Amino acid sequence: MSKKIKVGVLGLGRIGKMHIMNMLQMGGFEIKRGVDPFLTDELEREMTDLGVLACTKNADDIFNDEEIDAVVICSITSTHSDYIIRAAKKKKAIFCEKPIDNDINRIVEALKVVKEEGVLLELGFVRRFDYNHGHIAKQVRNGKIGSPEMIHVLSRDVEQSPISYLKNSGGIFVDMLIHDFDMARFIMGSEVTEVFATGEALINKEIIEIDDIDSAIVTLRFENGAIGTVIGSRRSGFGYDQRIEILGSEGFLIDENEFEHNVKYFNRDGYIGPKVADGFRSRYNDAFFEELVEFKNAILENRQPIVTGIDGLKSYLIAEAANRSRKSGKFEKVENIII
Amino acid sequence: MSKKIKVGVLGLGRIGKMHIMNMLQMGGFEIKRGVDPFLTDELEREMTDLGVLACTKNADDIFNDEEIDAVVICSITSTHSDYIIRAAKKKKAIFCEKPIDNDINRIVEALKVVKEEGVLLELGFVRRFDYNHGHIAKQVRNGKIGSPEMIHVLSRDVEQSPISYLKNSGGIFVDMLIHDFDMARFIMGSEVTEVFATGEALINKEIIEIDDIDSAIVTLRFENGAIGTVIGSRRSGFGYDQRIEILGSEGFLIDENEFEHNVKYFNRDGYIGPKVADGFRSRYNDAFFEELVEFKNAILENRQPIVTGIDGLKSYLIAEAANRSRKSGKFEKVENIII
Amino acid sequence: MSKKIKVGVLGLGRIGKMHIMNMLQMGGFEIKRGVDPFLTDELEREMTDLGVLACTKNADDIFNDEEIDAVVICSITSTHSDYIIRAAKKKKAIFCEKPIDNDINRIVEALKVVKEEGVLLELGFVRRFDYNHGHIAKQVRNGKIGSPEMIHVLSRDVEQSPISYLKNSGGIFVDMLIHDFDMARFIMGSEVTEVFATGEALINKEIIEIDDIDSAIVTLRFENGAIGTVIGSRRSGFGYDQRIEILGSEGFLIDENEFEHNVKYFNRDGYIGPKVADGFRSRYNDAFFEELVEFKNAILENRQPIVTGIDGLKSYLIAEAANRSRKSGKFEKVENIII
Amino acid sequence: MSKKIKVGVLGLGRIGKMHIMNMLQMGGFEIKRGVDPFLTDELEREMTDLGVLACTKNADDIFNDEEIDAVVICSITSTHSDYIIRAAKKKKAIFCEKPIDNDINRIVEALKVVKEEGVLLELGFVRRFDYNHGHIAKQVRNGKIGSPEMIHVLSRDVEQSPISYLKNSGGIFVDMLIHDFDMARFIMGSEVTEVFATGEALINKEIIEIDDIDSAIVTLRFENGAIGTVIGSRRSGFGYDQRIEILGSEGFLIDENEFEHNVKYFNRDGYIGPKVADGFRSRYNDAFFEELVEFKNAILENRQPIVTGIDGLKSYLIAEAANRSRKSGKFEKVENIII
Repeated sequence: MSKKIKVGVLGLGRIGKMHIMNMLQMGGFEIKRGVDPFLTDELEREMTDLGVLACTKNADDIFNDEEIDAVVICSITSTHSDYIIRAAKKKKAIFCEKPIDNDINRIVEALKVVKEEGVLLELGFVRRFDYNHGHIAKQVRNGKIGSPEMIHVLSRDVEQSPISYLKNSGGIFVDMLIHDFDMARFIMGSEVTEVFATGEALINKEIIEIDDIDSAIVTLRFENGAIGTVIGSRRSGFGYDQRIEILGSEGFLIDENEFEHNVKYFNRDGYIGPKVADGFRSRYNDAFFEELVEFKNAILENRQPIVTGIDGLKSYLIAEAANRSRKSGKFEKVENIII
Repeated sequence: MSKKIKVGVLGLGRIGKMHIMNMLQMGGFEIKRGVDPFLTDELEREMTDLGVLACTKNADDIFNDEEIDAVVICSITSTHSDYIIRAAKKKKAIFCEKPIDNDINRIVEALKVVKEEGVLLELGFVRRFDYNHGHIAKQVRNGKIGSPEMIHVLSRDVEQSPISYLKNSGGIFVDMLIHDFDMARFIMGSEVTEVFATGEALINKEIIEIDDIDSAIVTLRFENGAIGTVIGSRRSGFGYDQRIEILGSEGFLIDENEFEHNVKYFNRDGYIGPKVADGFRSRYNDAFFEELVEFKNAILENRQPIVTGIDGLKSYLIAEAANRSRKSGKFEKVENIII
Repeated sequence: MSKKIKVGVLGLGRIGKMHIMNMLQMGGFEIKRGVDPFLTDELEREMTDLGVLACTKNADDIFNDEEIDAVVICSITSTHSDYIIRAAKKKKAIFCEKPIDNDINRIVEALKVVKEEGVLLELGFVRRFDYNHGHIAKQVRNGKIGSPEMIHVLSRDVEQSPISYLKNSGGIFVDMLIHDFDMARFIMGSEVTEVFATGEALINKEIIEIDDIDSAIVTLRFENGAIGTVIGSRRSGFGYDQRIEILGSEGFLIDENEFEHNVKYFNRDGYIGPKVADGFRSRYNDAFFEELVEFKNAILENRQPIVTGIDGLKSYLIAEAANRSRKSGKFEKVENIII
Repeated sequence: MSKKIKVGVLGLGRIGKMHIMNMLQMGGFEIKRGVDPFLTDELEREMTDLGVLACTKNADDIFNDEEIDAVVICSITSTHSDYIIRAAKKKKAIFCEKPIDNDINRIVEALKVVKEEGVLLELGFVRRFDYNHGHIAKQVRNGKIGSPEMIHVLSRDVEQSPISYLKNSGGIFVDMLIHDFDMARFIMGSEVTEVFATGEALINKEIIEIDDIDSAIVTLRFENGAIGTVIGSRRSGFGYDQRIEILGSEGFLIDENEFEHNVKYFNRDGYIGPKVADGFRSRYNDAFFEELVEFKNAILENRQPIVTGIDGLKSYLIAEAANRSRKSGKFEKVENIII
């Protein structure tokens, strides 16, 4: 396939633009159409300058365009499952930002259609493409630490988003820690069977009113007998805290934070080191590129990508069990839904 | 008080010897008597060489010696509460290795006698005297991190002791993680109110037969609203893993492991760094000295030491709640016993 | 100037391709012509695919093309000064890889023509655009370390190039450490006045036959009274060693190596950390991009770039003094040539 | 030899006291006499409390005491060679603080007498006993880095001593960097043959009046063909900077600074790490103990210690060549005197 993959992009916000730039930079893609319900003249001009061939407000313009091989879904969460279904039925390859949906029934329905139609679906669990996380996962697969025993995923955003935004986010487990549940599964190489979760409103008490928390501790049990924790906070205050550790019978791996530079300043009071990377954009800049390289390669090689809708489902089910556990104060089983 | 403090040491094993050497090195102590029920000629000679004035097999020789000002209890756990009571009744200052006892009633009884007799009791929570842990605690007290939100104590021994030893240890929470519960209370500056605990037998399945675990995850809730984890294992395999992190509204503190040296070797494959300190003796060498400096100063200044029997009780009660939670699979309240 | 800058690229080797890709990725450039005397059909096709509009073997095709605004010179060193002169006479903006030449008379001649014609010349001292080095330079400028006293630049390639290549390189000082002399000037913010240099053939004795060395130690004296060292080797064996330290009256800054990832593996023998970045491409990947951003901005803003031919001259004169010192075994003054 | 080694200590200042305390703590020594020409009642009382059996002002009281097996010389430098000679003639084992003398003739004379009398002489090059430096030296001996090529010793005091003190110090090379010359020889495992040295008065210009410098750069050539640098300053301002790096054909070793603790504080501006160890006492605390363990063992095993007067002579000769080079501005040969 020497011709370019023709792409339709749904959602032209910050993430959409980033994906468009990455696709054009890596080559092999033609961005045939961009769709955004809030399309303005200015946004359209910006898209044209980037190299998007046409923009409209109507998603049908993408689904009905038979020349379009693949869609990249970066619109609001509530549209994801519908767009997946419509793209699948048109036999288009699908890249979709996480989560698939905030409703388990719609996730299952979308994944069933994907399966029936036999299309390719890559889910945007971008951290899988981070060089550090990938390296640690590979070491575990290669038996470097022997039999895995305990995993700890630490995940904290820099600053908490406004309550108005969080209100529709689906809560800390589904919105934020779903990434970390996927990391835990990915690094451990085993599914989570049981979850205990607790948390508090320590940053902003208003979050209680939307029945959410900002600081969470989740204990995990895995199929392989290992145990672990996912620790999350909506605000670290010091940077984008993204660390993973895993202990096994033969060794211990630790995947530390990224810093902004390598310069240290020493004086009479000690030394001052650089800031921790200040957000997902700078931290996962290369990984955002690599996840689309995988999308391209999966299309060209006519195979499923290394992270699929099933990964989205599994991690969603962990988040969902965490929500139940937070209420019940005890271990909750993770549901097992087979598509 | 320019004269020396006259000390009786109960238990002349490895820890007893270390305390004797530390007291003699710092000066201000005279080791008048050492008692060990398994006293041999060889052990007696060794003690004489160290500078212990007399050795016997009978603990009464210490309690009945009116010249003895202070006792240092390093005998087996089952003797601790009895020795504390007898020493207290003779108005002797007491340094006792942790735990006070493996039975809550006897702990309470011993502490009541200590209170009634008004004697000084320092408990051997040696980590409080480690420079790193002390530094992090001081920073928290000084408001450096603002309002504390989440604490994580990681604690792993290098290699697991034989099951035969662990059988009488009281279990991972009372025997080992009690130190870490004390650290959590100490650094946080707030009491633990609720505990969720789980764990597994991942190192040696035989531990199941003695109804214990070797790998544990404990979630803590504190009086001040903060939450945290204590993560422990009987075997890290890579060194004596002793780390603490605490996040607050204004900053984050991390207290990292100690290494054997500062040399790194680089070649084509990466670099090789030093080993993590390989046991509590090398890791807490200075702290073992400092805890007896505190004992001496508390005696000389006629005050309670900075870590007392009450700290032993509080941490025991957390361990006890962890035991309950491991069985019930849900949060358990930490009992509050006031002496 | 909303129209694109029309560029001619001289030299289509590895570096030339990299610059072409960077210019096309950042936008604002049109690569009108590429010239390479060894142009093949395959290379031409590759260039076309990248987006180069036309390729020939004749440099005149670029100099004579009046539409071309700027040239990027990545051809062999012996052509640089000639191309600079020809481009300058045609009033084209010039980006030139270092060094300007291996002959001081031709460097001076080229820079005089650049001055007379009033054209923009940026020299490819790429390290100036590295975030780490830039950060340390900024701290020094801002007075963070008070009055600078001692600077140490450590610079080692991963593996030594073949002697056949080194034979025409100009020697370790002109070919390799010229970058580090520029770094020393840049970070220190002061010119080098005197140089003492020594070195040895420790990697491959054959280098003696071409009157060169592979391991060098250079002592520098600066106009501001400070002193320093540049330490270089053709082969570190462990990665691309690129470190800078600077001590001042009020503090010390250290700019450490880049590593391939952040994962450490611990076991009974110590821990294994990642590799040091394995070459200038991975280490200075972002800086190669940024130096062309500066080229673009300088053209658009009609100003000289932050690193010019004069920087090339100054650093060459240090290298030249180092060559003299290595022979004389004593301090040698750095010549001061004013263009 | 189960009886204790009877010691006479010459010089009861800060270093003398430290050595006395270390000997008494390790056991096997009896401090029979302490001598100090400025002995006061208070100092005598302090010595008695430490455990020194008798104190006088007259060095003869030590040399003439036939029971005394060994002397520890911590008096002012100008007395060292004389005391060494007198002790040697009385067949006493000798521990002497560095340097042996500031006059080469007297050093040679003292070492000749030591040789003739066949007595044991350990020189106080304390860094040889530091765990880090010892580790790096051992790795080099074991061939870990293959053939050594370049060594860099960085050595900076925390704060500069007053000019009044420095006036009689012998200058930066003999007084301070002699330790680092010994480290270079020790780690490299080869003698220094040629030296180039330069330096400046950057901290306090008054040092020029006593014909000394406060910031020095020394280039070394070794017998084995390797080259290196010793970089020193009287004031780092950030701590006791004591680093060593060595590159070989098969690897690179770096021996980093010691820090006061392991705690880091992170906030929005970066992170703050601990202070570098703030002086030779805290940095080399254990090494000061170990050098006397070696003294004891050498006496008991009737052998020369691992660091002898010859090491003092060799390092002095490097310092002396550095002094010549600083004046001549060129490489100077290191004299080779065979005792």
